[in-house]
Amino acid sequence: MKTPQERFYPVIPAGGVGSRLWPLSRAAAPKFLLDLTGDGLSLLRQTYERLAPLSSGPVMVVTGESHANAVTQQIPELRGADLVLEPSPRDSAAAIALACAIIRSRDEDAIVGSFAADHVINPVEQFHTVVREAIETAATGKIVTIGIEPTEPSTAFGYIRAPKPLDVPGAPSAQEVDSFVEKPDAATAAEYLASGNYTWNAGMFVAPASLMLEHLRRTEPELHDGVLKIAAAWDTPERESVMEQTWPTLTKTAIDYAVAEPAAAAGDVAMVPGSFDWDDVGDFDAVARLNQEKTGEDLTILGEKSEVIARDTTGIIAANAGRRVVVIGMDDVVVVDTEDALLVTSRKDAQRVKEAVAQLKKHGGTKLL
Amino acid sequence: MKTPQERFYPVIPAGGVGSRLWPLSRAAAPKFLLDLTGDGLSLLRQTYERLAPLSSGPVMVVTGESHANAVTQQIPELRGADLVLEPSPRDSAAAIALACAIIRSRDEDAIVGSFAADHVINPVEQFHTVVREAIETAATGKIVTIGIEPTEPSTAFGYIRAPKPLDVPGAPSAQEVDSFVEKPDAATAAEYLASGNYTWNAGMFVAPASLMLEHLRRTEPELHDGVLKIAAAWDTPERESVMEQTWPTLTKTAIDYAVAEPAAAAGDVAMVPGSFDWDDVGDFDAVARLNQEKTGEDLTILGEKSEVIARDTTGIIAANAGRRVVVIGMDDVVVVDTEDALLVTSRKDAQRVKEAVAQLKKHGGTKLL
Repeated sequence: MKTPQERFYPVIPAGGVGSRLWPLSRAAAPKFLLDLTGDGLSLLRQTYERLAPLSSGPVMVVTGESHANAVTQQIPELRGADLVLEPSPRDSAAAIALACAIIRSRDEDAIVGSFAADHVINPVEQFHTVVREAIETAATGKIVTIGIEPTEPSTAFGYIRAPKPLDVPGAPSAQEVDSFVEKPDAATAAEYLASGNYTWNAGMFVAPASLMLEHLRRTEPELHDGVLKIAAAWDTPERESVMEQTWPTLTKTAIDYAVAEPAAAAGDVAMVPGSFDWDDVGDFDAVARLNQEKTGEDLTILGEKSEVIARDTTGIIAANAGRRVVVIGMDDVVVVDTEDALLVTSRKDAQRVKEAVAQLKKHGGTKLL
Repeated sequence: MKTPQERFYPVIPAGGVGSRLWPLSRAAAPKFLLDLTGDGLSLLRQTYERLAPLSSGPVMVVTGESHANAVTQQIPELRGADLVLEPSPRDSAAAIALACAIIRSRDEDAIVGSFAADHVINPVEQFHTVVREAIETAATGKIVTIGIEPTEPSTAFGYIRAPKPLDVPGAPSAQEVDSFVEKPDAATAAEYLASGNYTWNAGMFVAPASLMLEHLRRTEPELHDGVLKIAAAWDTPERESVMEQTWPTLTKTAIDYAVAEPAAAAGDVAMVPGSFDWDDVGDFDAVARLNQEKTGEDLTILGEKSEVIARDTTGIIAANAGRRVVVIGMDDVVVVDTEDALLVTSRKDAQRVKEAVAQLKKHGGTKLL
């Protein structure tokens, strides 16, 4: 019998455009393919390198068909059998459930871990410690979420309520989860923070593949049967034809609704606190902050640095258009220069980029998104 | 005998890049060829239209050879004989003296008026009243500068000291000039403003061509003889060969040193106050101010307006690169987007664009200038 750690298989669902990072992130160049920390590694590659050492088996990536080339370029180590290409977006439940089903068909005792492709996590050692605790906890028959310890009363995340310690050997910090709660208002978020019983739901979890599928079978039986059908054909010559036939029929729903919340109600969910620095790099303010922390400089220049002339300027400048960029006397500015679109805003208004994206969607600017 | 007004010939020296308007203004697209007020007219065209009604004769333009096509496109009315193309830059004395010499060879009683191609002046009627006074004053044997009434203790201009009224029929506001003074420091500028005896030297003057040339003959005899030689050949088949041979030998000096200052010392200079709104559009702050005054809007968009999405933004956006430009939450910003260079600064730092231009000059960015 293999140990829990030996049965661990990481999965990276690589989806989402990251529209608050427009015009750097696009449908064709989503956030997870960007190098936002100026070290030459995309967020996807960083995620892969963080996960690979935890597993003796392969890492699986689930992404859209159009990203196949970019993903294999970023992860040359990836085997074709571990690259799940979605012919169309069918939301997170289908993507993650299919990964679970394929992995379980190869190892029925598999413990899967699902980690977004576009988060920044440091230090890696601390992340490994946390995931190992989550694996031990999952092996006791739990779906284990990794809860991010809140640093502020954010209204941008869902929260996980986990008030009671569990007693799991090898996982001293594991807690019992009694509920997931949706993004709260500011007052509620402040209460959550003060109580100490809540962590942010960052969508990271570790669980036995069979337990995930069991909960899915109960809540979404058709979706469950569909992914099992694809998984059965996956490592055979029928993979492509079954995928093509079945995928478009799968129910579109989020993994939180289909599995995590019902499982929590059934007492099957645990939480291990993510006691590492975590950032979902939600906007250019976050990109600026992360780089500032890394370099100690209050101006971050991404892209073609030699094209940039910046004087008395702080904030972030991304020069990706092969053009000269001159910025003078601007504090906390965000300048993102790409071939077909330019963004100028401030770090404090960085969230509002989505307003412009919405406007482009409405008024025929879709080719820029 | 013709009246002074009938002997008036306007000259437009169209030179200077306007480097504080970079990257909009370039060697190849200098300030005078730009439309900075969004009404589809270049500053040169506006200057021409302001001057043409004052004269029954032709308007003359002096500019660099490389601008020949652009200038004739802007002023299709211009005859070839009234377009003086400098094979190389030889400073303002050569340019203006040659214009005077050509015009005098056609009308020995000519009164010339020289007006920069890149100033904004309103209202036109008031400008005409002032120039007509200057013409009457010039006809009494004076070099007449048009002094701009200072609105602030600016250190960016030279000043004209003219403390005593003259008594010229048809020119009630003409004053006697006793000196030109160089750009002062802030304290001196404040004194000048308080005294009421000083106006800004904006380089506009009206004078008998023969008086201009007489002063030039005394201070710069070689330059004088050179321009007379070219002028003698101008309306003959030898124009081009004499120009090519003689122009490069002309002394490089400014008209202020060669003529205006010595003439003032000799008591030959008068001043008529320019009682109109005047702006030399020195930087993007001025461009923003002029447009704001015109439209009442605190955001000016130049270029491809339909490409710009601006939210909660004031200042100026020039979209000249055929790209989408999104600006969010920026106050008094300056965003100038051109095909090969982008500028982002604030209205208050608009003057500092010249720092970037200097840096480009030093570090191999000359092709962008």
